[in-house]
Amino acid sequence: MAGKNTQVLMKQHPKGAVTEQDFEIVQRDIPKPGPDQVLVRNVYLSLDPYMRGRMDAVRSYAAHLNPGDMMGGGTVGLVIESNVEKLPVGTYVNGMLGWQEYAVAKANELRVLDPKVAPVSTALGVLGMPGCTAHYGLMSIGEPKAGETVVVSAASGAVGSVVGQIAKIKGCRVVGIAGGKDKCDYVVNELGFDACIDYKAGDMQAAFKAATPNRVDVYFENVGGDIMEMVFGRLNAFSRVAICGLISGYDGKPQAFTGMRHILVNRAKVQGFIISEHMGYWPGAIGEMAGWIKAGKLKYREDIAEGLTSAPKAFLGLLTGKNFGKQLVRVSPETL
Amino acid sequence: MAGKNTQVLMKQHPKGAVTEQDFEIVQRDIPKPGPDQVLVRNVYLSLDPYMRGRMDAVRSYAAHLNPGDMMGGGTVGLVIESNVEKLPVGTYVNGMLGWQEYAVAKANELRVLDPKVAPVSTALGVLGMPGCTAHYGLMSIGEPKAGETVVVSAASGAVGSVVGQIAKIKGCRVVGIAGGKDKCDYVVNELGFDACIDYKAGDMQAAFKAATPNRVDVYFENVGGDIMEMVFGRLNAFSRVAICGLISGYDGKPQAFTGMRHILVNRAKVQGFIISEHMGYWPGAIGEMAGWIKAGKLKYREDIAEGLTSAPKAFLGLLTGKNFGKQLVRVSPETL
Repeated sequence: MAGKNTQVLMKQHPKGAVTEQDFEIVQRDIPKPGPDQVLVRNVYLSLDPYMRGRMDAVRSYAAHLNPGDMMGGGTVGLVIESNVEKLPVGTYVNGMLGWQEYAVAKANELRVLDPKVAPVSTALGVLGMPGCTAHYGLMSIGEPKAGETVVVSAASGAVGSVVGQIAKIKGCRVVGIAGGKDKCDYVVNELGFDACIDYKAGDMQAAFKAATPNRVDVYFENVGGDIMEMVFGRLNAFSRVAICGLISGYDGKPQAFTGMRHILVNRAKVQGFIISEHMGYWPGAIGEMAGWIKAGKLKYREDIAEGLTSAPKAFLGLLTGKNFGKQLVRVSPETL
Repeated sequence: MAGKNTQVLMKQHPKGAVTEQDFEIVQRDIPKPGPDQVLVRNVYLSLDPYMRGRMDAVRSYAAHLNPGDMMGGGTVGLVIESNVEKLPVGTYVNGMLGWQEYAVAKANELRVLDPKVAPVSTALGVLGMPGCTAHYGLMSIGEPKAGETVVVSAASGAVGSVVGQIAKIKGCRVVGIAGGKDKCDYVVNELGFDACIDYKAGDMQAAFKAATPNRVDVYFENVGGDIMEMVFGRLNAFSRVAICGLISGYDGKPQAFTGMRHILVNRAKVQGFIISEHMGYWPGAIGEMAGWIKAGKLKYREDIAEGLTSAPKAFLGLLTGKNFGKQLVRVSPETL
């Protein structure tokens, strides 16, 4: 291949809130696939909140990045050169190829996608990590029962939107929390939630109380901060809280929480999880969700930034709730 | 019965930290047992941290007290008049007869104690609510495995001392946290914990880190506040935290907590519980613990305040860690 491979690196650890200056865009040579390798041209890059944690030099569930490392991330791409028989040129593949235009990979690092099942971009959203995160956290930790009240924050996002729709399928009352009227209207009118609280509107507390007359049995936590504080204050006895993310605290300012007593008073269970540790769960969840998509019961929305160099700015937007739907970056055209 | 029945009432809801002025001591007539009732002379009254929560006019797992209500609490007493054939005069009974000298009760409100199995006061401690709390929280929520590190706060107390000793029996490394050299020496030298951190000595953080080289797999939380903050910072992946009490926050000043991220990062499970909701668990736990006491594997210590009128002051001491062992009040002589 002639041409260059654009990559986005982490230039430095963020000091507090991440900025575009913490990234660096570089041009590298396009790698050559060796024996048993393919060359992939990335088509979509997934931007996800977990990436923020990798940028800090602190202990977490994954190794953190060092200055000069390429940003990691999930990708959907096209095989454009192949030394692997079962991965011919033109195959759509899902992998963790990072913030770059081209990458070489082996077959065991890639999952083959069938574009006839669903648009290939869904492998990064509803039929990928965010969708499986929603399904696992809700069903395995939340254990919702019909008639219970399920609350999910970041309700219009890649994970929250799936959590709420599955909870509706399971017969629950579902209350979302999202930022802005557009997102709340979408959550209620398009996704079918029973209510959605706009945390940017006035008096979130009163609105939330009114929307949860029977208090809260299951809480799927994506954001933390004031919203977590509020929801814990309305937990029911024997409620279950799945801690999926605490995005409000990722960007340099973890907020103190006064709600631990509610865990005791309500004999609640609060559990964190990482979906990559439950890979055996994925095929069943993806199969079930693909069926719900076909049946019109499960909807999704994507927010696509154009071009790899737009990734840093789109990522900053994701951390502050500017995206509306699953945040992707279109790295290159979807066809050969 | 001639004479009077001394009772301790809650005079008013505490404003912040509870004081002796929030209690009132009154003399009432000694009640007369009706048909199917006995008159009990209380011998021991149990003082427990949960009582503090009942004094606030806020939603909790039990109805709160109103001004003028008698303080509730567990008791061991002697039947001194009886209209119940199976509860003759001289029978030792355990019940929830409250902060008073005399009470009438029906048979189904009382548990008969055999003074030959163990001293009857243990029905309020190691072989009663605190002991069952320790056993249930450790085994059912903590699920300790041999070789794991178990940490318990308020380690010399009625619950903590039993948690640590059971964890030792199960083959764990056990680290206690307690206030003062005397309590820490007792926990290590008498109870056999591997280490005990004195939170009143300097540099608790460094001492705790040194005592938990393999970090923390199970945490049995009794206190909250700075200690909870510290322990959450050393949780291992897939650790389990039983929230039994948050005594440092009971007395008017709940402290903000910055450690929620550790639940997510470590995929930890944090669960609250109330032992009175697991009554079916008690007989097996008590039987097992009685056997361990006989075998010398499970030790206990009592801190006995003399006379019912000393109860308010002893309760204040309990809330600030002044007691050393299970806090009881001797209400009357142990024999008829």
